Amino acid sequence: MKTREIHLASRPTGWPEPSNFELVETELPAPAEGQVLVRNLFMSVDPYMRGRMNDRRSYTPPFRIGAPLTGAAVGEVIESRAEGLAVGDLVRHQNGWREHTLLDASAAERLPGLSGISPSAYLGVLGMPGLTAYVGLLDIAGFKKGDAVFVSGAAGAVGGLVGQIARLKGASRVVGSAGSAAKVAHLQEALGFDAAFNYRDAPVAEQLNRAAPDGIDVYFDNVGADHLEAAIGALRVSGRVAMCGAIAAYNATEPPPGPRNIFLAVTKRLTLRGFIVSDHGDRTAAFVEEVGGWLRDGAVRYDETVTDGLENAPSAFIAMLRGENVGKMVVRL
Amino acid sequence: MKTREIHLASRPTGWPEPSNFELVETELPAPAEGQVLVRNLFMSVDPYMRGRMNDRRSYTPPFRIGAPLTGAAVGEVIESRAEGLAVGDLVRHQNGWREHTLLDASAAERLPGLSGISPSAYLGVLGMPGLTAYVGLLDIAGFKKGDAVFVSGAAGAVGGLVGQIARLKGASRVVGSAGSAAKVAHLQEALGFDAAFNYRDAPVAEQLNRAAPDGIDVYFDNVGADHLEAAIGALRVSGRVAMCGAIAAYNATEPPPGPRNIFLAVTKRLTLRGFIVSDHGDRTAAFVEEVGGWLRDGAVRYDETVTDGLENAPSAFIAMLRGENVGKMVVRL
Repeated sequence: MKTREIHLASRPTGWPEPSNFELVETELPAPAEGQVLVRNLFMSVDPYMRGRMNDRRSYTPPFRIGAPLTGAAVGEVIESRAEGLAVGDLVRHQNGWREHTLLDASAAERLPGLSGISPSAYLGVLGMPGLTAYVGLLDIAGFKKGDAVFVSGAAGAVGGLVGQIARLKGASRVVGSAGSAAKVAHLQEALGFDAAFNYRDAPVAEQLNRAAPDGIDVYFDNVGADHLEAAIGALRVSGRVAMCGAIAAYNATEPPPGPRNIFLAVTKRLTLRGFIVSDHGDRTAAFVEEVGGWLRDGAVRYDETVTDGLENAPSAFIAMLRGENVGKMVVRL
Repeated sequence: MKTREIHLASRPTGWPEPSNFELVETELPAPAEGQVLVRNLFMSVDPYMRGRMNDRRSYTPPFRIGAPLTGAAVGEVIESRAEGLAVGDLVRHQNGWREHTLLDASAAERLPGLSGISPSAYLGVLGMPGLTAYVGLLDIAGFKKGDAVFVSGAAGAVGGLVGQIARLKGASRVVGSAGSAAKVAHLQEALGFDAAFNYRDAPVAEQLNRAAPDGIDVYFDNVGADHLEAAIGALRVSGRVAMCGAIAAYNATEPPPGPRNIFLAVTKRLTLRGFIVSDHGDRTAAFVEEVGGWLRDGAVRYDETVTDGLENAPSAFIAMLRGENVGKMVVRL
């Protein structure tokens, strides 16, 4: 059958541009024994994909030029030659950036349907971003009841859930930063943050000191750069940083300056710890049970920014890197 | 009785100078009930004291202008009105920077004599610097057999022991940096480091890559700045940094630049953890048993740079900050 996919046309220097991507029409053979044919319903665009566009091995290998990009997607089985997978089944897999795909049964994770919740939740609050928030806050930063928590990129897929989990687990204060007044209002009004600020309004350190005048115990870092430096300054003795991402650096051609106050880690006995969610698959069951429960109860809210059409996936990806989304950015196919 | 002590005359800006100190003759009353009079034998000069010269609370309060400085010292009881302490006893306490002192019994730690070892060892390899090396390497950095270890300031009181403990505990490679060719030779020839370099010879990152071409698992940081950045670059996946000191920053009037590659902590899942040895007194018994044993067996070597006379304590302190010592810098009184 004929289908369409997005290929990497060239590698970006700095910010990616639409010309780095190419929409390609291609022909899929019929599924072989043990395979399924899947029609993708939603695909994910995530910050980590920017790293894979470079010709440099990071924790995942680079995308190849002239080949389709990959990434999380949910789809519906439309033809099956694999035991245990039937037509109509909902599956999650890594062959995003295309409208249809052939999958070996082992590459398709069968998902229960969610009543009243879009299957795209499996790419966000119940997917990799959700697990990232859960593991980063609870395991990496060792969140404890009563901690004051700051999260950057708080209106993003990960950050919004970090703040909500912290609140539900008894944080003394939850502070978030985001890149627009509308997002700041959303954090305070919809997600229950105690304080939030727009990092474009004034230096982060100054705004963080106002938002958390007694300091913080935990910083969940999605941004790096000035946010990390401000958080190091605001952390109290025995403070902890979960280093999850550094979106400020992803499109920089020169590395941003490092935190000049890093020596405070000694006097304040800080711990800074980086992590990659794929190392923590063993926490999936606990995560799905706890966050899934909150979702069913309405205790956790999740937001999505939805773009329609595979041809718009590159611009959705670039918009997400620019912070134009609220909550999880997904592409509906 | 008449005695002499060193007072803080003024606070330094940048590097301390002799004029920041004043040698003062003073009169000590006879010991009150519960007190001892101690003649100090050796006093310690340590990097952390530089922070206490500033008018800014760090993890210890600042020294006061016009009052004697304090710090670890070992001395001999010459008059006792305290139960459990007799004339001739060797004690360790915090009233250094003076030739004699009155102590409440609770402020004096009675020490066993060491056969063939100078009592000054209680200020170094068996004192706070030794415990710092032990806790930092084993507990904070979580050293494991087979780890490749890099330590900066390796010819100092802490660094020299870090390298030796790592070797004795089965490190795959022990690398040190120091500030002169003589120190580098000392690390390799006397202390058993596998490789060492003079950080003044060429960029640290370049020299570290040559000294540890397969990377490192643990970095024990006494220096900060370019050393920390180089170590972050050289650390392998799941690498750990014990942040102990940042001597590069102690006398700087502007903070040195932060590590520009800190975002590698995410992709390499690094942990950077600061610590202060005084939080870890519960490890003293294990430390004394293990390191004391190595010392008795001759498995661990310790070095001292000894300056004579209280009047020379300020210049010994400044020389230590400039890295002119090999091993522990002490003043014999």
